[in-house]
Amino acid sequence: MARQKHDERLHDRKFVRTFFTSPTAVEGEEDSATMIRSAAGLSGMQAPDVWVPDNEDATAPSMRDEGARNIIEVVSEEGADFPGEIHPRIVWFRGDPGTRHQCLTHLMEIADPDNGAIQHIDGFVIPEVGDIDDWKKADEVLTIVENEYDLEEGEIAMSVIVESGAAELAMGELRDEMGKPTNNLERLFMLVIGEVDYTKDMRAITPTGNLPSWPEVRHNTSRAASAAGLISVDGPYDDIRDVEGYRERMVDNQAKGLLGIWSLTPGQVVEANTNPLPPETSRWRMDTGGRTVDLEDDDGVQVYDGNRVSLEESDDEYTLRVGGDEQVLDEEDLREELLGIVEYVPSMDDIVDSMEEFEEAREGGTGAIAMERATTVRIDGVEVEVSNDRMWDEATYQAAMTPVSLFQDVYEHRPDQHDELAEMYSEDVVERAMDVGGA
Amino acid sequence: MARQKHDERLHDRKFVRTFFTSPTAVEGEEDSATMIRSAAGLSGMQAPDVWVPDNEDATAPSMRDEGARNIIEVVSEEGADFPGEIHPRIVWFRGDPGTRHQCLTHLMEIADPDNGAIQHIDGFVIPEVGDIDDWKKADEVLTIVENEYDLEEGEIAMSVIVESGAAELAMGELRDEMGKPTNNLERLFMLVIGEVDYTKDMRAITPTGNLPSWPEVRHNTSRAASAAGLISVDGPYDDIRDVEGYRERMVDNQAKGLLGIWSLTPGQVVEANTNPLPPETSRWRMDTGGRTVDLEDDDGVQVYDGNRVSLEESDDEYTLRVGGDEQVLDEEDLREELLGIVEYVPSMDDIVDSMEEFEEAREGGTGAIAMERATTVRIDGVEVEVSNDRMWDEATYQAAMTPVSLFQDVYEHRPDQHDELAEMYSEDVVERAMDVGGA
Amino acid sequence: MARQKHDERLHDRKFVRTFFTSPTAVEGEEDSATMIRSAAGLSGMQAPDVWVPDNEDATAPSMRDEGARNIIEVVSEEGADFPGEIHPRIVWFRGDPGTRHQCLTHLMEIADPDNGAIQHIDGFVIPEVGDIDDWKKADEVLTIVENEYDLEEGEIAMSVIVESGAAELAMGELRDEMGKPTNNLERLFMLVIGEVDYTKDMRAITPTGNLPSWPEVRHNTSRAASAAGLISVDGPYDDIRDVEGYRERMVDNQAKGLLGIWSLTPGQVVEANTNPLPPETSRWRMDTGGRTVDLEDDDGVQVYDGNRVSLEESDDEYTLRVGGDEQVLDEEDLREELLGIVEYVPSMDDIVDSMEEFEEAREGGTGAIAMERATTVRIDGVEVEVSNDRMWDEATYQAAMTPVSLFQDVYEHRPDQHDELAEMYSEDVVERAMDVGGA
Repeated sequence: MARQKHDERLHDRKFVRTFFTSPTAVEGEEDSATMIRSAAGLSGMQAPDVWVPDNEDATAPSMRDEGARNIIEVVSEEGADFPGEIHPRIVWFRGDPGTRHQCLTHLMEIADPDNGAIQHIDGFVIPEVGDIDDWKKADEVLTIVENEYDLEEGEIAMSVIVESGAAELAMGELRDEMGKPTNNLERLFMLVIGEVDYTKDMRAITPTGNLPSWPEVRHNTSRAASAAGLISVDGPYDDIRDVEGYRERMVDNQAKGLLGIWSLTPGQVVEANTNPLPPETSRWRMDTGGRTVDLEDDDGVQVYDGNRVSLEESDDEYTLRVGGDEQVLDEEDLREELLGIVEYVPSMDDIVDSMEEFEEAREGGTGAIAMERATTVRIDGVEVEVSNDRMWDEATYQAAMTPVSLFQDVYEHRPDQHDELAEMYSEDVVERAMDVGGA
Repeated sequence: MARQKHDERLHDRKFVRTFFTSPTAVEGEEDSATMIRSAAGLSGMQAPDVWVPDNEDATAPSMRDEGARNIIEVVSEEGADFPGEIHPRIVWFRGDPGTRHQCLTHLMEIADPDNGAIQHIDGFVIPEVGDIDDWKKADEVLTIVENEYDLEEGEIAMSVIVESGAAELAMGELRDEMGKPTNNLERLFMLVIGEVDYTKDMRAITPTGNLPSWPEVRHNTSRAASAAGLISVDGPYDDIRDVEGYRERMVDNQAKGLLGIWSLTPGQVVEANTNPLPPETSRWRMDTGGRTVDLEDDDGVQVYDGNRVSLEESDDEYTLRVGGDEQVLDEEDLREELLGIVEYVPSMDDIVDSMEEFEEAREGGTGAIAMERATTVRIDGVEVEVSNDRMWDEATYQAAMTPVSLFQDVYEHRPDQHDELAEMYSEDVVERAMDVGGA
Repeated sequence: MARQKHDERLHDRKFVRTFFTSPTAVEGEEDSATMIRSAAGLSGMQAPDVWVPDNEDATAPSMRDEGARNIIEVVSEEGADFPGEIHPRIVWFRGDPGTRHQCLTHLMEIADPDNGAIQHIDGFVIPEVGDIDDWKKADEVLTIVENEYDLEEGEIAMSVIVESGAAELAMGELRDEMGKPTNNLERLFMLVIGEVDYTKDMRAITPTGNLPSWPEVRHNTSRAASAAGLISVDGPYDDIRDVEGYRERMVDNQAKGLLGIWSLTPGQVVEANTNPLPPETSRWRMDTGGRTVDLEDDDGVQVYDGNRVSLEESDDEYTLRVGGDEQVLDEEDLREELLGIVEYVPSMDDIVDSMEEFEEAREGGTGAIAMERATTVRIDGVEVEVSNDRMWDEATYQAAMTPVSLFQDVYEHRPDQHDELAEMYSEDVVERAMDVGGA
């Protein structure tokens, strides 16, 4: 295993959008492996970047031995064709040696090359880890398994579910611990938050029983991933019908650098595969006093057509009302006021344009250029031109590269999604997006 | 002292709702101990879980020697009958050896078994701690005192006030440090935030001079308590007349796992003893655009009777207005929209019901069940049925257990509150709540 | 170098309001040093507390050797007269030894006493640091330079730009590391956040490409500064025309103890020099439902003159409407309701008054006093008297001291701003502010 330096990511995938769990054994079904059998057949946008046959919480304790055998059966048969990575979740508990021993037993069975599954398995997911010494115990279990079956030390990736205060603190030590000679923690791949158990461990209470939003643990997980060259993934969003809420959570996560999220259904997988990618089409939007709405494009004019914002013009004076606030403004002040509430959401095409423009300027010896965005906004029939510009330097350029790098990583590792991506963006945009950034 | 493992809590109380401070010596009173004498007589909901005769900030520096003697006098007389735990706060300062020496002097006096107080004292509260090595100094002072009076090493609990950036960072190291052979940090019991001094230490400024809300230090304190098996307590809310604000702070804290709070008056004690317990009666509430209001139950129909939300029906179409936003919806979409703004706050009775239901299902071999909540909502005379369901698995069940565990801990340790609890919930609900969770 | 204890700040300045960067070499100009030459001439409120000739990101890579020479030329000529401190930013990268070697080369040149610049330079700013061992490498480069030129070890201050998750984590270790014998980290002075690169390092994405607000890294930087006796500074606010946004950011920062901010223009310097100082005049303000507005003083009566709040009186009953919420109240409840939405922003004069009052009470043996604020509020012609009081004890007093200490630090180190400060506050207020707190 290569010695890790800085925040280099050592595994194949540099980004993971989707972490999709399926119960490994369901009681009362004719084929107890039905759920993982059907998940194994997913492809395209419905197939996750990481598929997790879940032999822990999603599977009843009494079914887990059968679950381990089901993993072997399904993965040995279908694993070669599955388009994403495969990382089964196995049992573990920081506070119970019996559960940890069961982990070893299941691993020995699943990882036995004679069973034909390990060849298609990229790693395992360890839940309920505690402090860093507990992570090392899990790492050692994997090392023993690798040794038993003559696998390369560190070859099996390890991901953890962060669902205790102790594990949250342990993430702050990873960078120091991963270099030490007596462990193989470089095998670490994903840091996944488990908010339900975390809420229990933190003994948090909400009046409705809903989960707290836990902004700090999401920040700390993203930061640890950044510092240790890992990939951060948010936990399950259990109100499956609430697609809008799932999307809002992803946008909030992305602003924290937490680009992956758990999916409980193929429908959520599609949402979560798509959401972190830049949109196909750009749009302007307006903050109408606490609520942001998209403006409608009418032949290049951005039209606001609601009743939270109104605008009247009379003798060079403008009366602008936003929510309950009314202001009388001259044209200059109106323009500035609108600039404060209107913003542009660039498409993939726009982002690639801007990056190419910066690359060209940089080659010409210029370190910083102004990028202008201008449009006409129409409210209640009154039209106002707005424009803003932002300075781009090397740092801006590199920060803007993140969604493009994500796209490139997806495109490289998920040929099964090429058609859908080409349809979404057009072949031309895809090609330019793959070229930009010297990738 | 037992070796601590994982996040096990070693002290008698697993939860502390209330931390009530009283000045130990007031100048100009005939009886300088008047405040602690009257506090010592509290019982029932007016008596805190932890009572803190405060020989530090609440008492003038010149009165603290007298304060130490007052503690001895009052606690030796009244301590046996006090229904909560007793943890006097003594002087300490990370930056001043003189203050630390005064700590030792006061402790030697208060803890002398001949003075009859230490028998009723559960521990001491150390303010103004710095980094972890400073915590160890305070721990060592307690060890010396224990040695002097032939007490068991580690017998006296130690709680700290976190009121510096250094102490905030130290909390992240507790789990590692508490196991080391050269300290007795297992004596740690509560981590209490001291926001006024913390604000000073952080050099924060607000325009009005009010305290910042410090969400991060509250998270970090709760997390440290979780990781090290301790109990977290928020600092004083000094606008005593603002009961609503105190309640909101507690709800915000509880979502962080910070279940205890400082109380400055018996009135605040009653609020803080009651607030973290599940409510007696359930209710539905509605987010009316930034402000959440309870719906009124009219014979099973939940009625909204305000002017921020309106609903009109005409030919299978519904016009719903929330705040400034108006939408025209069909019945299906209306239902979904309402589901997004209406939520259920379960009573203790409901929570116990759900837990019993899950326990029964689990015994029958089912790992996850859907819990449905349904009702009829009436707005402007228009009635709409709404229902949602949530999947409960083992983790949900255990997370839902927190308020019940809190109740059980209270019930076990506070017989003086039994009557008030029975009156609040009814004997039957109390009994079922004590039974659930295999407690 | 003195051994640092607790959170003692060892450098001359205990506060830094402004961190102003200028490109050291601009291509295509007749005089490539034009930007730093003009910056060197700033004084008074336009001159920053810390001026940063920026030989890193603001200067094109190809111009940086020339930039180093420009620093020498301009600082040797103008440095003696510059009223703030001078801390050039030089190149560094945690992941690239070549860049680190270039750092040493530039430093050797700039710090050579024969070049006449180092005599006026207070320290250097190191960007792109990684974990704590990387900070030590930068420290060692400075030690070598000091050794080479017979400067005292630790004499050159070092400040860092925190722009990676690794650096954010490193800040938590500073207090432990700064005492170790094999480094000179006591030279550390400022912790400066670099949000653009941090966003890149964290791989965060926002729909518009704007920077996330990163509350946690701002908290953690402020906390580290508090724990290690350093000064925290927020990164650049790149929408230069948005003065209101820049001010809001500063108010938000100040509530976190982050009192300094980057400035990109002399206009921003004026804003950032002024903003953390207490205002010249006090005012009352009202939360009108999500938006806070200043009340207008009409001869001691505070008048609300907008349309978000209305008040009507009829037969001892009051109808108060705030945003969309209407309540009918008696006089007592109205008073309480208004108390909840009206607040007082004290002027420097007021703050000094309160502190003097407390100092006097303390000398008289009283540890806590109530400070009352009362006024009459007029809404729609209806007048209501409101008053609140707040208990002040030693801790309140010390927390209130922060803006005054900041003022005192400014006054002591920035004689070039004396006239502007006297004009702002009056000579009398300045004199009393310098006297208070036993300074």
